[in-house]
Amino acid sequence: MPKRNAFYAQSGGVTAVINASAAGVIETARQHRQHIGKVYAGRNGIIGALQEELIDTSKESKSAISALRMTPSGAFGSCRHKMKSVEENRAEYERLIEVFRAHNIGYFFYNGGGDSADTCLKVSQLSETMNYPIQAIHVPKTIDNDLPLTDNCPGFGSVAKYIAVSTREAAMDVASMCETSTKVFILEAMGRHAGWIAAAGGLAREQEGGAPHIILFPEIAFNRERFLAKVKRTVKQNGYCVIVASEGTQYKGGSFLADSGVRDAFGHAQLGGVAPTLAEMIKSELGYKYHWAVADYLQRSARHIASATDVEQAYAVGAAAVEFAVAGKNAVMATIVRGTGKRYSWSIGEAPLANVANVEKKMPRNYISRDGFGITDAARDYLAPLIQGEAYPNYKNGVPQYVTLKNVSVPKKLRKQFKLKS
Amino acid sequence: MPKRNAFYAQSGGVTAVINASAAGVIETARQHRQHIGKVYAGRNGIIGALQEELIDTSKESKSAISALRMTPSGAFGSCRHKMKSVEENRAEYERLIEVFRAHNIGYFFYNGGGDSADTCLKVSQLSETMNYPIQAIHVPKTIDNDLPLTDNCPGFGSVAKYIAVSTREAAMDVASMCETSTKVFILEAMGRHAGWIAAAGGLAREQEGGAPHIILFPEIAFNRERFLAKVKRTVKQNGYCVIVASEGTQYKGGSFLADSGVRDAFGHAQLGGVAPTLAEMIKSELGYKYHWAVADYLQRSARHIASATDVEQAYAVGAAAVEFAVAGKNAVMATIVRGTGKRYSWSIGEAPLANVANVEKKMPRNYISRDGFGITDAARDYLAPLIQGEAYPNYKNGVPQYVTLKNVSVPKKLRKQFKLKS
Repeated sequence: MPKRNAFYAQSGGVTAVINASAAGVIETARQHRQHIGKVYAGRNGIIGALQEELIDTSKESKSAISALRMTPSGAFGSCRHKMKSVEENRAEYERLIEVFRAHNIGYFFYNGGGDSADTCLKVSQLSETMNYPIQAIHVPKTIDNDLPLTDNCPGFGSVAKYIAVSTREAAMDVASMCETSTKVFILEAMGRHAGWIAAAGGLAREQEGGAPHIILFPEIAFNRERFLAKVKRTVKQNGYCVIVASEGTQYKGGSFLADSGVRDAFGHAQLGGVAPTLAEMIKSELGYKYHWAVADYLQRSARHIASATDVEQAYAVGAAAVEFAVAGKNAVMATIVRGTGKRYSWSIGEAPLANVANVEKKMPRNYISRDGFGITDAARDYLAPLIQGEAYPNYKNGVPQYVTLKNVSVPKKLRKQFKLKS
Repeated sequence: MPKRNAFYAQSGGVTAVINASAAGVIETARQHRQHIGKVYAGRNGIIGALQEELIDTSKESKSAISALRMTPSGAFGSCRHKMKSVEENRAEYERLIEVFRAHNIGYFFYNGGGDSADTCLKVSQLSETMNYPIQAIHVPKTIDNDLPLTDNCPGFGSVAKYIAVSTREAAMDVASMCETSTKVFILEAMGRHAGWIAAAGGLAREQEGGAPHIILFPEIAFNRERFLAKVKRTVKQNGYCVIVASEGTQYKGGSFLADSGVRDAFGHAQLGGVAPTLAEMIKSELGYKYHWAVADYLQRSARHIASATDVEQAYAVGAAAVEFAVAGKNAVMATIVRGTGKRYSWSIGEAPLANVANVEKKMPRNYISRDGFGITDAARDYLAPLIQGEAYPNYKNGVPQYVTLKNVSVPKKLRKQFKLKS
């Protein structure tokens, strides 16, 4: 088989460890020079392929690529661009093939979540659908932890650790002040459709009845009366109440709490946020002093407190993707397989992309306590290993030393520019 | 001199390192058993003294007290209770003396900010004003960094490090997605009256023109037009704009941005927050996609990313306070004195409490760039040493192992209960 180049792209929301996957892909590809030529990265994800904006990763030093293990965000840029079906937007696929052909790309490594798995599947079918030989392997990544067929998703463990640590710390703060000050603290966690991240807040709990006292999941319909009653009971019993709320918390019927429908004097929608919405509800109904935090991007970029397990797994799925490609595979995703022993162990597996794309893994009901406000021991057993270990970055002048790559462009070979439909 | 007991209390908002100061006080007092009997801590701060709810710290093991160095929040509880003047509320001072006398308390260590320094000063005068011999020493603490006569305040360095690290991480996240997604990110930092914490966001900047592109200080009157113009220019030039905004950002005249005055359909005040207010402004005027974070308590409790310098200084001021007491001093605050050499060094000094109480140290104008949106090299030189070094806590099961003290109560000796006026 003649040597062909590889294309790697980061897709969707970035994480604290997606660059570790990039390091896994690039370092492993460099070990297979007999099969794989250069690894070209898409500048800003798949858009980079469409616009022929490729980054030559061979221009990066060994130490720079190695430093990606310690660097959050997307080193090559990422994007939110979902490719439609070949039938709906044939031009995009023709363009992809044009660019791939011009740069002799035979391997496609796509690092993303559910939507990206779908795109990766479509690319894997280009050999058949459009007669361009290519192997497409998906490298899983999503803080939402909602991909099927893998025990967990790289990126999740680190955001879970961030939320667990932050919940414990903030809860201690509130506990020490509640006698005369704040009684209720609310931390809003990401996760629009699945409550995995909010659930991780439960790992902050040290003993029965401890903080967090309430977790709100998108999977459980929000009931205002039951919620307020639980807050009141908790404050009476403990003196304070700590709540971790998923941004996707919703009423029965599916309307999000954050979308309150309230308009200001100018008709603008009220500023969103589940945490402030809950805080206002508590203040007006129960009168407690409150504080709230919205961690937003801080949680998914917090490489400073990344889970060592997550970093290792992120690297491993990247490395495995290249091994799969070299072994001739196509249309698969590297997965994390949990060992069956009592002590946590994991290994790398694979899943057919056709079974991954567009399937969303929500929290199983038995991971959520009967009253809907907490996690069960089963959830704890599942979650706890994923946040194990600290993988601290190096520091310089008091802040982490993260790498910025040179990101040298591959000279364009095509005359035509491509205009994205957005 | 007959041996007398000491009273220690934590006051006001807790920090990531106030317990390190407690460790400094308690461990040093244990080295002076010939002068100091037991250290009693106020349960929930000064309220504990008024209500005769004292904690016997001698019941805590050596290792538990040592673990306070690594534990955020207030281990004995804190409160917001400002004691009025003796003239205005003589009953409180009489009660204090009653409790102090009952428990043979001759040393008063008060760990707090500006208001607390004022209380500490009043207690230091009890020998004169009410004929009860006592030595009162202030142990500085405030994330706001607004105490005078000390180069910096314990608690500030850690929140500054948190904001600098978080700003860098979130900025990298935004940079990698801005081509197709979020263009503006706003991090709201604490600091109602002084911009020190927001200023620390500036330490995230790696090069001229890098993120954060805009810092908003309470010291600089907010000008909507200039702000929006700067955001627009930044997005055009860089593709994205990162903003660190102090919660105390205010218009000329002093009205806070967070207090928008807008009411919902029920007449409730709109949910606060400078970050969402700015986000809405940017969205409606410039149309950029935005994200915002409000770190709230997360920033001041983030012991997991505490500044090693801050931890050491917090311990040192606690230890020094005890040495001052043993040396017979009264009405002083332990201070941090910056060395004059080029390389950062510090030592412990002292300041008369009369000069400390109720003086607020704001950011000097020459620490803020001419356009009002950034920090100068002078600010950088001042701030950078304060976030140096990492002082990681131990971890167990993926989360920090913080100590919870036994907090054994000292048996009450007084019959009378005391009702606080609040």
